[in-house]
Amino acid sequence: MSITVYRKAHFNAAHRLCKEGWDDAKNLTVFGKCSNPNYHGHNYELEVGVTGDVDRETGFLIDLKILKKIIKEEVEDSFDHKNLNLEVPEFKTLNPTVENIAMVIWNKLNDRLSDKYMVTVKLFETPRNFVVFTG
Amino acid sequence: MSITVYRKAHFNAAHRLCKEGWDDAKNLTVFGKCSNPNYHGHNYELEVGVTGDVDRETGFLIDLKILKKIIKEEVEDSFDHKNLNLEVPEFKTLNPTVENIAMVIWNKLNDRLSDKYMVTVKLFETPRNFVVFTG
Amino acid sequence: MSITVYRKAHFNAAHRLCKEGWDDAKNLTVFGKCSNPNYHGHNYELEVGVTGDVDRETGFLIDLKILKKIIKEEVEDSFDHKNLNLEVPEFKTLNPTVENIAMVIWNKLNDRLSDKYMVTVKLFETPRNFVVFTG
Amino acid sequence: MSITVYRKAHFNAAHRLCKEGWDDAKNLTVFGKCSNPNYHGHNYELEVGVTGDVDRETGFLIDLKILKKIIKEEVEDSFDHKNLNLEVPEFKTLNPTVENIAMVIWNKLNDRLSDKYMVTVKLFETPRNFVVFTG
Amino acid sequence: MSITVYRKAHFNAAHRLCKEGWDDAKNLTVFGKCSNPNYHGHNYELEVGVTGDVDRETGFLIDLKILKKIIKEEVEDSFDHKNLNLEVPEFKTLNPTVENIAMVIWNKLNDRLSDKYMVTVKLFETPRNFVVFTG
Amino acid sequence: MSITVYRKAHFNAAHRLCKEGWDDAKNLTVFGKCSNPNYHGHNYELEVGVTGDVDRETGFLIDLKILKKIIKEEVEDSFDHKNLNLEVPEFKTLNPTVENIAMVIWNKLNDRLSDKYMVTVKLFETPRNFVVFTG
Repeated sequence: MSITVYRKAHFNAAHRLCKEGWDDAKNLTVFGKCSNPNYHGHNYELEVGVTGDVDRETGFLIDLKILKKIIKEEVEDSFDHKNLNLEVPEFKTLNPTVENIAMVIWNKLNDRLSDKYMVTVKLFETPRNFVVFTG
Repeated sequence: MSITVYRKAHFNAAHRLCKEGWDDAKNLTVFGKCSNPNYHGHNYELEVGVTGDVDRETGFLIDLKILKKIIKEEVEDSFDHKNLNLEVPEFKTLNPTVENIAMVIWNKLNDRLSDKYMVTVKLFETPRNFVVFTG
Repeated sequence: MSITVYRKAHFNAAHRLCKEGWDDAKNLTVFGKCSNPNYHGHNYELEVGVTGDVDRETGFLIDLKILKKIIKEEVEDSFDHKNLNLEVPEFKTLNPTVENIAMVIWNKLNDRLSDKYMVTVKLFETPRNFVVFTG
Repeated sequence: MSITVYRKAHFNAAHRLCKEGWDDAKNLTVFGKCSNPNYHGHNYELEVGVTGDVDRETGFLIDLKILKKIIKEEVEDSFDHKNLNLEVPEFKTLNPTVENIAMVIWNKLNDRLSDKYMVTVKLFETPRNFVVFTG
Repeated sequence: MSITVYRKAHFNAAHRLCKEGWDDAKNLTVFGKCSNPNYHGHNYELEVGVTGDVDRETGFLIDLKILKKIIKEEVEDSFDHKNLNLEVPEFKTLNPTVENIAMVIWNKLNDRLSDKYMVTVKLFETPRNFVVFTG
Repeated sequence: MSITVYRKAHFNAAHRLCKEGWDDAKNLTVFGKCSNPNYHGHNYELEVGVTGDVDRETGFLIDLKILKKIIKEEVEDSFDHKNLNLEVPEFKTLNPTVENIAMVIWNKLNDRLSDKYMVTVKLFETPRNFVVFTG
């Protein structure tokens, strides 16, 4: 038996794909127009899933008000209207691909949530490209 | 190998979150504005998944016309345009959180479907909050 | 030349359709299951449009932070997680059809916005039923 | 630990449901209006998921430009604006149910992708009916 | 002052673009892959708007149950799971472009609705291509 | 009588809101976090409407293949994966608010289309904020 509760959130950010130590020509070869040194950006849409047991008394797996607050503190406050490469410490040396962003978000949320929960992160970079990371 | 067929449905209902035996003040503390004694409501959007084998002759895992009919009889006829707390027997003593509603729907559908199928219920309480229950 | 800026918002509420002075049987005849005396509910999705001139200096027609705040104060704070019939004064004697709710919202927003703007309200009662009111 | 990257695509096609060797009356009994001998059609929306490891150097699980190209070559070029029954070899003798189309797509994509990846296909026949095939 | 009520519906159909009297080569030149003689198809999504006055007594501009019934009779029953070119009389000699389909639907609905209403038809051929016809 | 054909497109870009000649403090006061000097970004979703007469012979108001090509050349090729402030000439001295971007796009498209057409631009900066410009 498995039940998962999901909460959506979103943030808008600039980024570029590039590897530390590669020059622009090498980055262009590997990452194409996503490596534009002047940055481009996205409306990231996030779905956070929390799997666990439903509390018999409340009927809640997790209080969504609390989950919403944690997402705001860990993701929206840090990422929204930011330049991911320049302003988010995790991406100082880590390429902000949608895969890496999803894993960073997962780690931040998992650290804040009780061990009794399993966390899933679905992150849309565009309405057409997205990842799911389940830890 | 795994294949799952999904069918969407929807129902509109009123509810409030409250625990039998708690007074309004206690319900307000735990459930916030969702405990409004005068009720609020939602457009619940439902996705029912049925996992099984594809019939070699028809190419169907399940005839969606039959699945649609079962969803109508078990969910839409019972829940649509209803007050979940007052009019749906399952929630007379069970708090109609989205978790509990999803599990009630799963039980009703699972009872109607052959044992050869596994059933999954995804239930959106709002476009931003939803659960998945896999039995 | 015409330019309109739109902002989305949402609220969840219970309601029933009924006319003051009609009994339940008459309401049932006219409004069908929407007249359920125990209420049902919806996730109302709202799109507010403001038409006007773009300020040459800022490039803004209206500061969306201000529009968002007005929508919150006039609509979300009054309607969200409420029973429209019982708790929203405008619907004490006015049937809360989606038409009437849209017009009430339009009036509340129009009163808060400068005369230099024209206001439009699009209100979804469900993803399949909605109205547009342009004042 | 599991991470999956998804890419959406779409194609428009005509089809009818029918079993080789059955006459129209038998097909009508089993497949209803979907067996119309003159065909009907759909906008098929496809989500391809690829599960694997994230390359430490690039931060990519798979280069989405390459995945997009493979989907175009294997699915869009073969299926888009086609009559599935008459023009797509796989459905000459296989009933083009959404289950079978998803499995055909999965096989075509899986053949093109390295064994280090697991492939998932989600195929919407309509916004209300869809399947997920995981191989 | 203007208020419009909208109702969504949908139908799935096969069609091809071709002009009566043109051969396949000429049709291919003008209509490209949409002229495939074996047909392709779409999930057409329809939004019907009715503009008029709100009845003071009921709060309805139009009873959506009646509008839904008219749409079913005039559009869904005639077009759903059909080959538009072969089975819908209006397109025997009229090319079923999304423009023409929208105008045919408008005429059928407008004939059924009172003169006191103005009718608008929005028709999606795909999620990316659509038309609005206002009569 | 009025008929409009719509085509969707999209581009991803970085931008910041700022007025030429204002310092960062002044920009922060007026534009808030949208003035971040390091940029943020969006997935802009664009709907272009073209109003005109339907050609009796083809049933087309405009050939969508041509409209798609013009949108690609005028909007996608210039804006996609770009920094609007730094790399798009129109925004060297014009603040790239969603209002101004919509008007720039409208001008570029209107210049490419015959005078017999009226052009409308709907531009989503986020799924929640958008503008419509009708020239």
